[in-house]
Amino acid sequence: MLLAARPEGLVNETNFTLDDTAPIPTIEDGEALVKVRYLSIDPTIRGWMNDAPGYLPPIGLGEVIRSGGIGEVVASNNDAYPVGATVFGMLGWQEYAFTDPHAPLMVVPEGVDPTWALSVFGTTGMAAYFGLLDIGQPQAGDTVVVSGAAGAVGSVVGQIAKLEGAARVVGIAGTDEKCAWLTDELGFDAAINYHRENVMVRLNETCPEGIDVFFDNVGGEILDAALAHLAMKARVVICGAISQYNSDVTEGPKNYLSLIMKRARMEGFIVLDYLDRFPEAQLKMFEWVLGGSIQHQEHFVDGLEHAGDALNLLFSGENSGKVIVRI
Amino acid sequence: MLLAARPEGLVNETNFTLDDTAPIPTIEDGEALVKVRYLSIDPTIRGWMNDAPGYLPPIGLGEVIRSGGIGEVVASNNDAYPVGATVFGMLGWQEYAFTDPHAPLMVVPEGVDPTWALSVFGTTGMAAYFGLLDIGQPQAGDTVVVSGAAGAVGSVVGQIAKLEGAARVVGIAGTDEKCAWLTDELGFDAAINYHRENVMVRLNETCPEGIDVFFDNVGGEILDAALAHLAMKARVVICGAISQYNSDVTEGPKNYLSLIMKRARMEGFIVLDYLDRFPEAQLKMFEWVLGGSIQHQEHFVDGLEHAGDALNLLFSGENSGKVIVRI
Repeated sequence: MLLAARPEGLVNETNFTLDDTAPIPTIEDGEALVKVRYLSIDPTIRGWMNDAPGYLPPIGLGEVIRSGGIGEVVASNNDAYPVGATVFGMLGWQEYAFTDPHAPLMVVPEGVDPTWALSVFGTTGMAAYFGLLDIGQPQAGDTVVVSGAAGAVGSVVGQIAKLEGAARVVGIAGTDEKCAWLTDELGFDAAINYHRENVMVRLNETCPEGIDVFFDNVGGEILDAALAHLAMKARVVICGAISQYNSDVTEGPKNYLSLIMKRARMEGFIVLDYLDRFPEAQLKMFEWVLGGSIQHQEHFVDGLEHAGDALNLLFSGENSGKVIVRI
Repeated sequence: MLLAARPEGLVNETNFTLDDTAPIPTIEDGEALVKVRYLSIDPTIRGWMNDAPGYLPPIGLGEVIRSGGIGEVVASNNDAYPVGATVFGMLGWQEYAFTDPHAPLMVVPEGVDPTWALSVFGTTGMAAYFGLLDIGQPQAGDTVVVSGAAGAVGSVVGQIAKLEGAARVVGIAGTDEKCAWLTDELGFDAAINYHRENVMVRLNETCPEGIDVFFDNVGGEILDAALAHLAMKARVVICGAISQYNSDVTEGPKNYLSLIMKRARMEGFIVLDYLDRFPEAQLKMFEWVLGGSIQHQEHFVDGLEHAGDALNLLFSGENSGKVIVRI
């Protein structure tokens, strides 16, 4: 699936070209051919479609949409990637991908559900882990609040916060079903339905001592409400801003001067900076997930041709958990 | 001078009552009476006039305007404050103040120009020192940019940055005269006149490697321009937002998502948190000021009745250096 035109707002079919007549490619020396099975659908992909500088270059017009994915090696001239191996890496929105010496693929160990390599053990789980622990630095007894809390990152953030000793974890999500999942299944202390409830009032009720760590996936009014409820020396982790990615103009946080009043900081991060520390975090996540202390959910969408719709789910909030396209 | 009505926007005479018929007060046991000589005029005073929570309670209607000041002890029943001593503390916009056991006054050492205790050795200089060094954490070779650069805090920030090894210090100010003072007298590497020049373009020119530390006194469009030019791992110090204090609605920084792209942080502080570290910083400032490596400027306004106009100078930018009311 190629980028045909840069989207404005949500993506639609005019933004993509799907060439389904291309022959199955053949491999050269040292290469392996990967049949793509699953695609990781992340908000950041929408950012890469804009013609704007970012932490990676924009996707060029006519280029395959950049995306993490899981695939199976179906032909190989490279011993590192034996035929039949399950591999994980930047495979793109396409049916077949070549190995690239500049961006090595990881072989997914046997016994690990390959789609988990896209969620809890992949960049999603890693963003939750490093964003919360390294940037948010929660202390025992803290109040931690997460926006986009039923999403793939947010739901893991809240659970790690509890495991690491937060006294109170509050999630902000968009439906009563999601809120019930957070409190009844994942152990969040409270959840706020931002569509139905007044977030300012509910943060006041659920965080009587203020917010020590706010992990933000959303931006906009929810970020402003959280800024108005910070505790002293609070940390605001900026992971993303799904409420803003489809707008021309980003809405800035009007309450940023709370950072002065509360001697607080707001900090952003990119999970790829932590690549060399993924193994330590994956080991910890493995322990937590297999021990049942971290639950996760995948939301499958079938068919490469629906990858754009899958991406839009992240912004409409109609997904439950990690969005994965199954090819 | 009492707060008669809470201001909207800039203050005017309707906000204050000046009772010039009150008799000179007499002192009780343990008290001393201070004749107020100089008042420290700071942007934060405007914030205290609003009926909104802050780091100190709002000034109540009918109460004396809270303000730092310098005075002379004219009557004393307290050995700590001998008659004739010069004292510094929260004296308020009034002609006479009592000592308060809950807010002890500092005695200004002989040989120090008393007004310097309001500028370089007072909260102004201390805000520059701790905001830059403790929050901004400049490293040798860094590019440091300061807004409100010709102001009492900003001008000292830039000079400390140079002394601490910044490779490049750029100031943003509102007139050509101020810009010339920064580059010709204070040793700034470049200055940007935000009224006459395009700040985005000029930041690009003057900071080719991006901004490592942005010290912000201003907020609004200037903060946004700086956010668009951050270097990796940049620190944005939020000291104040003089462009916003007189508005009903604060304009949030639209470019705050640069914090993600640049793995940067934005952090606020209140200088009063550093009270117990003032002596170390004052000693250092003393060395710098007497050694001629830090220059400073005071802008005097005469008459208690003009304290409101003096406050407005900070927001119109018509002052040069620290604004002090001389009574």
